Amino acid sequence: MKLPESTEWVLHAAGSLAQLGPGGTASAAKLAEHFDVPPTYLAKQLQALVRAGVLTATTGPRGGFRLAKSPGDITLLQIVEAIDGTSQFYQCNEIRQRGRGAAPPEQCRKICGIARNMHAAEAAWRASLADVTLAEIVAGLPRGVPQRTRTLLA
Amino acid sequence: MKLPESTEWVLHAAGSLAQLGPGGTASAAKLAEHFDVPPTYLAKQLQALVRAGVLTATTGPRGGFRLAKSPGDITLLQIVEAIDGTSQFYQCNEIRQRGRGAAPPEQCRKICGIARNMHAAEAAWRASLADVTLAEIVAGLPRGVPQRTRTLLA
Repeated sequence: MKLPESTEWVLHAAGSLAQLGPGGTASAAKLAEHFDVPPTYLAKQLQALVRAGVLTATTGPRGGFRLAKSPGDITLLQIVEAIDGTSQFYQCNEIRQRGRGAAPPEQCRKICGIARNMHAAEAAWRASLADVTLAEIVAGLPRGVPQRTRTLLA
Repeated sequence: MKLPESTEWVLHAAGSLAQLGPGGTASAAKLAEHFDVPPTYLAKQLQALVRAGVLTATTGPRGGFRLAKSPGDITLLQIVEAIDGTSQFYQCNEIRQRGRGAAPPEQCRKICGIARNMHAAEAAWRASLADVTLAEIVAGLPRGVPQRTRTLLA
């Protein structure tokens, strides 16, 4: 399993917007240049974050993308799910009920132990990502980074 | 992100072998019939479990696959990693050091906070899967299932 390469781009782009302070806006072109990533593809991925309610897109000469809410209210999970979706890693096709070994329905009223544990592991991944906000990411940046980001993206 | 469909097959195949008791052996053909899955592809995936040290392949008229160790020593993680590998979901390409916004090397001595948290979430997923053994899966099966598995696969 692999997340799309653009996951890193949008996490860092959102992190940069968080460093600009309330209402801070940057265009996809500026953000793409900031990280040397393809501008058209980055813009498309940032639109996915708009649809997910993480960013707001503004138009006009000073338009671009800004955070749709406070950095403390945006989690890594929200950003990752905007890009990769929310479907489960492990697809249970109930093969315990198929084939020569098919278990009768009365033995399948409870979720299969394999599926239950596979889904619990995925829930642990999601919970871990839901526990980290952009505010915490920005707070952990080396001294001087937010100031430089503001200077370059302003 | 999605695990291969065959993840369910091999988890259930290994779970069935665990139900056969010590040394219990079944052919890929029998296991494929048991779950109505493609025998050639299942055999290929079971060979991946042999390479991972989870199963042993035996030859001869009564040959097939059996567990390489006790069900209490085989975790869901070992099986999943045999099929899907061990590479990280999140690939950090250090884009913080690229482009116009590139941070200087002295600000990049510590791992990036985004990468650190992305990897921590994945570690939580792996830890959750490493915490469940085939012995626990078998212990949680409805009454009568292991007996039927033994009758059908013997």
